[in-house]
Amino acid sequence: MYKWRMVSMWSEAELLFKANQMFADNVRNMSNGRIQIEAFSSGALMPYTEYFDALRSGVVEIMQSGGGYYSGKDPAFVAYESASIIIGDYPRTLMWLYAGGGNDLARDLYGKWDLQFLAPSFYTFAGESIVSKKPIRGFEDVKGLKIRAPETMAPVWAALGADVLTIPGAEVYTALSTGLIEASDWGSPAMNMRMGYAEIAPYYSRPGDYYMGAVAVMVMNGEAWNSLPDDLKEIVQVAADWQNIDAWTLSGYDDLIAAQTLAEAGAEMVVWDPEFTKEIKRLIAEEQKKRGSETEEGRMIIKAVEDFLATIEGG
Amino acid sequence: MYKWRMVSMWSEAELLFKANQMFADNVRNMSNGRIQIEAFSSGALMPYTEYFDALRSGVVEIMQSGGGYYSGKDPAFVAYESASIIIGDYPRTLMWLYAGGGNDLARDLYGKWDLQFLAPSFYTFAGESIVSKKPIRGFEDVKGLKIRAPETMAPVWAALGADVLTIPGAEVYTALSTGLIEASDWGSPAMNMRMGYAEIAPYYSRPGDYYMGAVAVMVMNGEAWNSLPDDLKEIVQVAADWQNIDAWTLSGYDDLIAAQTLAEAGAEMVVWDPEFTKEIKRLIAEEQKKRGSETEEGRMIIKAVEDFLATIEGG
Repeated sequence: MYKWRMVSMWSEAELLFKANQMFADNVRNMSNGRIQIEAFSSGALMPYTEYFDALRSGVVEIMQSGGGYYSGKDPAFVAYESASIIIGDYPRTLMWLYAGGGNDLARDLYGKWDLQFLAPSFYTFAGESIVSKKPIRGFEDVKGLKIRAPETMAPVWAALGADVLTIPGAEVYTALSTGLIEASDWGSPAMNMRMGYAEIAPYYSRPGDYYMGAVAVMVMNGEAWNSLPDDLKEIVQVAADWQNIDAWTLSGYDDLIAAQTLAEAGAEMVVWDPEFTKEIKRLIAEEQKKRGSETEEGRMIIKAVEDFLATIEGG
Repeated sequence: MYKWRMVSMWSEAELLFKANQMFADNVRNMSNGRIQIEAFSSGALMPYTEYFDALRSGVVEIMQSGGGYYSGKDPAFVAYESASIIIGDYPRTLMWLYAGGGNDLARDLYGKWDLQFLAPSFYTFAGESIVSKKPIRGFEDVKGLKIRAPETMAPVWAALGADVLTIPGAEVYTALSTGLIEASDWGSPAMNMRMGYAEIAPYYSRPGDYYMGAVAVMVMNGEAWNSLPDDLKEIVQVAADWQNIDAWTLSGYDDLIAAQTLAEAGAEMVVWDPEFTKEIKRLIAEEQKKRGSETEEGRMIIKAVEDFLATIEGG
């Protein structure tokens, strides 16, 4: 019997963590109990910044995480993760990953670190969402806007003329309350809803308009993978492929419901100027490409994504 | 050891049939050979019109087919199949099926016929595609147009003023050559490409603009399902869920490439007037709803889809 530990990038509260647990259940049931996986939510076993090393050393057997957290090892991890952002929607991203060779590149990349890439693990259907104390509709509203943003988005907001603060997610509520910031770029609609921002930052930029969640991943320790007989390898592989879709549909529905719940709680839905959306998408893709292109392998992955886009252009 | 036969709605030439075979491979590998499924392409074992009865009587154990082929048994099969057409895109259709209760309704429906619903089995990423001898851009181009259409689409084209012929797919090439028809509503872009229409009907209406493929299904004989131990049930279930995505990404890529190949072969891409697209989508959804609403159960399924759409409206 195989007893494994899996670390997740999601907190207990997120449906995405539930999808990780459903993966563990699927594997246990399909293997008739021969593989038992315990899933640990973000930080429960160790800080998420230590997952990559813990996976390599065999402290844990499976990791559900995102390339941005260990881009210091190789920026190519970010290049793979950026595919959804460059391609611009999940259905075609899935096509690149499964029919266009994207996952093969990931398998090669993680293989160099003695890890077994299993499958993509999408972040959210609706993408990130922004809450703000005043409506954001276009270029003018962003100039001088005091916005909280993650490090990866800081250059994008700065390029648009915003005044960016990279404070931790946990401090966003207080920062919005006190007026230290006027807007927050953090989490999906459902995550924002659970944070209860509706009263202090009642403007809500419509989801999906500007930022696709990055392609997160599910990866195994290489030795643990190699120790499996073929039937169990196939069970883990198919379950990993399926968890991505399971998580995507569950969290996507959650995010769409959240948008409605936010609206009912008094949040005002704001739709961006299409020109502004286009420009911010361009800036985000450019920034991701820059981050991912620092190594030969990263450039190869980004070129593969761009070649895919060129190929399907007529469709 | 379980030795099963599966009948498919796809011909040998289609990637979608390959996806059926990949499902059989997954199940065999995950079960370490305990379940062996042989997949038969459309008509190889019997006409597709006989699949439903063959599945019920246990002549075959698995069927990959579409509700339209046995709507005479209960129009509710068409109601389930119409979800993608009413919802209008696959990602949200997936959400309805998996997070919004759609698959539960299908399980109940097929259960009444002693069948085990396994999973949806999408038709194509790009939807149907139309080839024509003259460009179709909007309402004016369709008035009096001699078009081949499947029976389900005949009332839609008629409502738009076209002159509809419901000749079989196999006769489309000749009918286009001789001028009996000026346009053909049959198959996906990749299917059209393989038919070699580019020279005789060089106008190609851009895919995805008007018609989502219906939600086809993968269904098991109830007794065969019940005979399985729990681990094999889970193996068949997860493999069935995954085959849908596998087929969708493979055939979707194929369809997008086909659009490019068609263009290179001299086909001219024609994009429809958005108002025309909107109206034809409305007519198709209306027709599907009418077909599916003839029984109480069908009305319940269509109401569930409409309630889902109302719920996610803000997202």
